[in-house]
Amino acid sequence: MKEFDEYISIVNKAIENLKLPANPAGLYDPIRYTLECGGKRLRPVLALAACEAMGKDPMTAIHQAVAIEMFHNFTLLHDDVMDNADVRRGRPTVHRKWDEETAILSGDAMLTTSTMLLAIKAGENLASALDLFNGTAMNIYEGQQLDMDFEKRLDVSIEEYMEMIRLKTSVLLGCACGMGALMAQTPFETQLQFFNYGVNLGLAFQLQDDYLDTYGDPKTFGKAIGGDILNDKKTWLLIMALKEDQTGEVRNLIGSDVPAEEKINKVRAVYDRLGLPERIHELIRAYIDTAISCLDQLPIPPDARAFFIDLALKSATRNK
Amino acid sequence: MKEFDEYISIVNKAIENLKLPANPAGLYDPIRYTLECGGKRLRPVLALAACEAMGKDPMTAIHQAVAIEMFHNFTLLHDDVMDNADVRRGRPTVHRKWDEETAILSGDAMLTTSTMLLAIKAGENLASALDLFNGTAMNIYEGQQLDMDFEKRLDVSIEEYMEMIRLKTSVLLGCACGMGALMAQTPFETQLQFFNYGVNLGLAFQLQDDYLDTYGDPKTFGKAIGGDILNDKKTWLLIMALKEDQTGEVRNLIGSDVPAEEKINKVRAVYDRLGLPERIHELIRAYIDTAISCLDQLPIPPDARAFFIDLALKSATRNK
Repeated sequence: MKEFDEYISIVNKAIENLKLPANPAGLYDPIRYTLECGGKRLRPVLALAACEAMGKDPMTAIHQAVAIEMFHNFTLLHDDVMDNADVRRGRPTVHRKWDEETAILSGDAMLTTSTMLLAIKAGENLASALDLFNGTAMNIYEGQQLDMDFEKRLDVSIEEYMEMIRLKTSVLLGCACGMGALMAQTPFETQLQFFNYGVNLGLAFQLQDDYLDTYGDPKTFGKAIGGDILNDKKTWLLIMALKEDQTGEVRNLIGSDVPAEEKINKVRAVYDRLGLPERIHELIRAYIDTAISCLDQLPIPPDARAFFIDLALKSATRNK
Repeated sequence: MKEFDEYISIVNKAIENLKLPANPAGLYDPIRYTLECGGKRLRPVLALAACEAMGKDPMTAIHQAVAIEMFHNFTLLHDDVMDNADVRRGRPTVHRKWDEETAILSGDAMLTTSTMLLAIKAGENLASALDLFNGTAMNIYEGQQLDMDFEKRLDVSIEEYMEMIRLKTSVLLGCACGMGALMAQTPFETQLQFFNYGVNLGLAFQLQDDYLDTYGDPKTFGKAIGGDILNDKKTWLLIMALKEDQTGEVRNLIGSDVPAEEKINKVRAVYDRLGLPERIHELIRAYIDTAISCLDQLPIPPDARAFFIDLALKSATRNK
């Protein structure tokens, strides 16, 4: 197994080597901009690592890994349009830097390009890789639809929320792991265990995101704290508070015109009172434990096992 | 060969049989709405007909034909958002009936679904079918980008315009024909000839669209006459007029606040003075002739040849 940073270098080199056309510039420049925007490359790294863990040269899965990263970035591009976001990774979103039409069209081009990349040197794995990839994509759209539906409701249950984040963000991590195993010619049951590791990792990751948005340190987190509270975003924290806060204080703060800092402080105080920070971390640890237990089922060498355990533990404790 | 209407029935039945999920309704209802919106189904019909012309059961290509129709409708959905259109085929566009986020997301789901459909029973044709389909898709995005770029320019040449419509609208007709031939296990050179027939048909089709928008009969055309003129759309007619109108009258009418009916009449008068209606029809006939000459290269029986000639002639003379 390689170091995490080595996998990142391999991925970044492959992305640099994509050589997208120069023109029309209005179509391809935003794609370049999106891909160079400093992502963590977690998904393609998982694909390469899973491939190597199963005993194959990780380069066997490089095109599929880049396909997944291209697809991930396409979802961010379109999500930013749908959410009307101004900033992504510290830079203007594509629809602010260019315009909305550009963000839609370049996103479409990224989606098609990702399926083109998926097919490169896929050989006899092509049909399976497409099934996994396309099935994952449809899950993601369903998750995004649920997320949008939830905005209009105050009665979203925790079960519904967990299903939404499973679809919207976690299955792609599962797909990345499963794709690496697939390209390594692994039997389906083993691919599925890798997939399950990835999904559980993803659930832990998203819950940690929910936590950091309210409780993170602005200096390390990379974006303003409390955004979810200000946007009345149905996170795990808010849904639990809506369910358990007998005083109705959180309910009244939603959609209110209380000043920003006051709203963040008051909502966070309710979260504290309900012990939600501790409880969300219990849940995160449970998903990490489940992820690690998936590794137990995998016929992988100790250094590979250590790699994925390390990744899981870091996800649970990261602060950005 | 079957009658045109028979192919349409086969396509419509296959689309009815798609059985997309009911939920999330916000994701899938707009897809159903878009597909039931009364399209002419020209592209999937071309795919089935090309397959049958090459001696195979047209059902060999049914999933790929539906994939192309799904893709075509996805492009209309996203184009309508980018163009801010209110109406499509006499009904509200998806972003008016629902909202813009829905139009973007359901469109994305349609694009992924089209690649899933493409793979159904594709067998050993999968890689080639994907190449043809994805290459066509990228061409279409490039064409749409050029179309958007042209809005800001007054110096668009006829050559640039023809290249834009070739990419934006014609290659998809070429792809439909080529895909039918591909699924019939036709040698590549024959697929290419079918593809070329489709592209030339498409060029004739788009030029006839340009003509009808200004000169069509509102009762038969199905939409208001003169929309392109009012929107200063760079059509073949406008580009020729900008190039040849020595008086500068057309140039001055672009972006002016002259009342709608007067603008349409004045611009049309310049077109008439320059003989553009006759000249555009010369050009359309030339592309039809080229399309038909592509048929000469094809090892297809007389009834198949007659089918495609008939289709080409009808495209050149249609009034809606």
